[in-house]
Amino acid sequence: MSEYRQDPLSRRWVIVGCDDRAGRPNEFVEATTRQSGLPCPFCPGNEAHTPAAVATYAANGKQGGWLVRVVPNKYPAVTLDQPTCPSCQPLASVPTSGHAQPAAGNTAPGFGCHEVIIESPRHVASLSELTDVEAELVFRAYRDRIRDLKAEGRYKYVQIFKNVGPAAGASLEHVHSQLVALPGVPEVLQQELAASADYFQQHQRPLLVDLIEQEQAAMTRVVAQTANFVAFCPYASRFPYEVWIAPRRHQPRFEAVETGMLGELSRLAREIAGCIERAVGAAAYNAFLHTLPFDMPAYDHYHWHIEILPRLTKVAGFEWSTGCFINPYSPESAADHLRATLPVR
Amino acid sequence: MSEYRQDPLSRRWVIVGCDDRAGRPNEFVEATTRQSGLPCPFCPGNEAHTPAAVATYAANGKQGGWLVRVVPNKYPAVTLDQPTCPSCQPLASVPTSGHAQPAAGNTAPGFGCHEVIIESPRHVASLSELTDVEAELVFRAYRDRIRDLKAEGRYKYVQIFKNVGPAAGASLEHVHSQLVALPGVPEVLQQELAASADYFQQHQRPLLVDLIEQEQAAMTRVVAQTANFVAFCPYASRFPYEVWIAPRRHQPRFEAVETGMLGELSRLAREIAGCIERAVGAAAYNAFLHTLPFDMPAYDHYHWHIEILPRLTKVAGFEWSTGCFINPYSPESAADHLRATLPVR
Repeated sequence: MSEYRQDPLSRRWVIVGCDDRAGRPNEFVEATTRQSGLPCPFCPGNEAHTPAAVATYAANGKQGGWLVRVVPNKYPAVTLDQPTCPSCQPLASVPTSGHAQPAAGNTAPGFGCHEVIIESPRHVASLSELTDVEAELVFRAYRDRIRDLKAEGRYKYVQIFKNVGPAAGASLEHVHSQLVALPGVPEVLQQELAASADYFQQHQRPLLVDLIEQEQAAMTRVVAQTANFVAFCPYASRFPYEVWIAPRRHQPRFEAVETGMLGELSRLAREIAGCIERAVGAAAYNAFLHTLPFDMPAYDHYHWHIEILPRLTKVAGFEWSTGCFINPYSPESAADHLRATLPVR
Repeated sequence: MSEYRQDPLSRRWVIVGCDDRAGRPNEFVEATTRQSGLPCPFCPGNEAHTPAAVATYAANGKQGGWLVRVVPNKYPAVTLDQPTCPSCQPLASVPTSGHAQPAAGNTAPGFGCHEVIIESPRHVASLSELTDVEAELVFRAYRDRIRDLKAEGRYKYVQIFKNVGPAAGASLEHVHSQLVALPGVPEVLQQELAASADYFQQHQRPLLVDLIEQEQAAMTRVVAQTANFVAFCPYASRFPYEVWIAPRRHQPRFEAVETGMLGELSRLAREIAGCIERAVGAAAYNAFLHTLPFDMPAYDHYHWHIEILPRLTKVAGFEWSTGCFINPYSPESAADHLRATLPVR
């Protein structure tokens, strides 16, 4: 028996809990091997294989060597050597009159900035394998780069994301995240901002803060909590074992997180990645941050959060054609399973 | 040099043409093998492995044996043995007051109908491998099933889609499509209907008809044309070698296609699948039909079409977090390449 569920923040629909689909036959066996002999461009000693660092982080007070290193992407999707376009705003969800051709579609130059955050000098693959110090520096790098790029005044949004494993679109194994600074606000953010605004108008409360309180009252989908953060499987999870992490107190902007909280947040994120891997074997996953776009004071009811999407199921024709995801494993079962894999404290 | 482009119909943004990204290193080698020894549930003689047929099609006037066979999905995502919900409409994009929990999200029973269209008695994998007769009967089955399910009066939309190859989410190799009849109008359709309505209000013309005329005038993205249909790489293609097929004359509903046109349409679709495979090797792809939902006379400016999405690139953290796709290969280059692989007539 399955159920349609709608995520209140993105307004995305999913079909969840058709557990018997998990038993359907699969004729295909997929295998991935890593090509040996290629020098890893992210390992120490190979720094010349990447552009010069934008920022590096070392252990406190230590000299020499980096633990986290931020570099421009050598193969960028968007670049700075293009004009920003005063007459159009790319990524806006409603067509503008900017460069519009009558019916063919809007266009704008591929302006932006694309960076890679190398998360450890050690050649490991997942967030779960970082040390305490590395994990904290990674989240500090996220925050600092958002602050710095915001200060440049050229961008409307910085999207931070992570691809782990080839099934999640990673092309290099060495643990890293990416960052794309954009001249417009992406569609998914716009949908979340619109839903947050509607909810705030009705209830005078931030949507995600109410949602977290309800999750904490129900405790059926909460995976772990710390003093300041909560990790839960969202009600309308698109993917089996999907987990969101958010601050318990209302905070619209990730760049406002105090340095003293970054260790707690990064340890929780690392722990959740470890839980997922213990629950389902070495998982491929995508993860990303959603935070309030720059210059949007009227949306202060928005609440930053991290979404972790394990890639165990394939996105196929039904999802592309409808926008509705089929998730055979319910988030309640996933949360149960993930809690059982938490390290004993 | 890349470019932001917005699709006028879905209003989705993509970043296209960052061709140098194609040269970035990939450490991973992926391989798929098919498990031998499993009986194929879709091959003749194994009909007992599937539920009883809803419809079968044989060669004209021939006795015995089927060429196309429609069966209920043995592992359905949605089922009929659940109540339809009078107080909420699943898949509507704006939260209803139906079963809504305050912030947690809307829900509805997983009501619907999920069928498989087996496209040939021969164990082949792709649309390109069908015979003329089989291909025509497949498109006739699509049309007939939509007509029949519409006549039942319980559904708002029938989504027909196809997954070819494990990278596109296929779990069985034997050539087949799927159909899900839904109690609501999916989000992607709602977005296309809204854009079509806006365009019609401004121009008193159907958006997709104008777009096709512009493509036929420019001829930079048209791959092939027949008397009644055109195949083109859309301006804001999400994926390399993405192709849409649409009727040249305005037609909102696929179920209205006359029987005499089905052969021409099915041969074009099969030819395009073959072009893609010749251009890039045996490709994995998703394909689906978008047509006017039932009971929507006010949207008669909508235009049915087929979208074919080759799955050569991975959808990863950037796409999930922003809703914007990165497509390294421009649709103009893709159309050039596909035209070069067309069979000589």
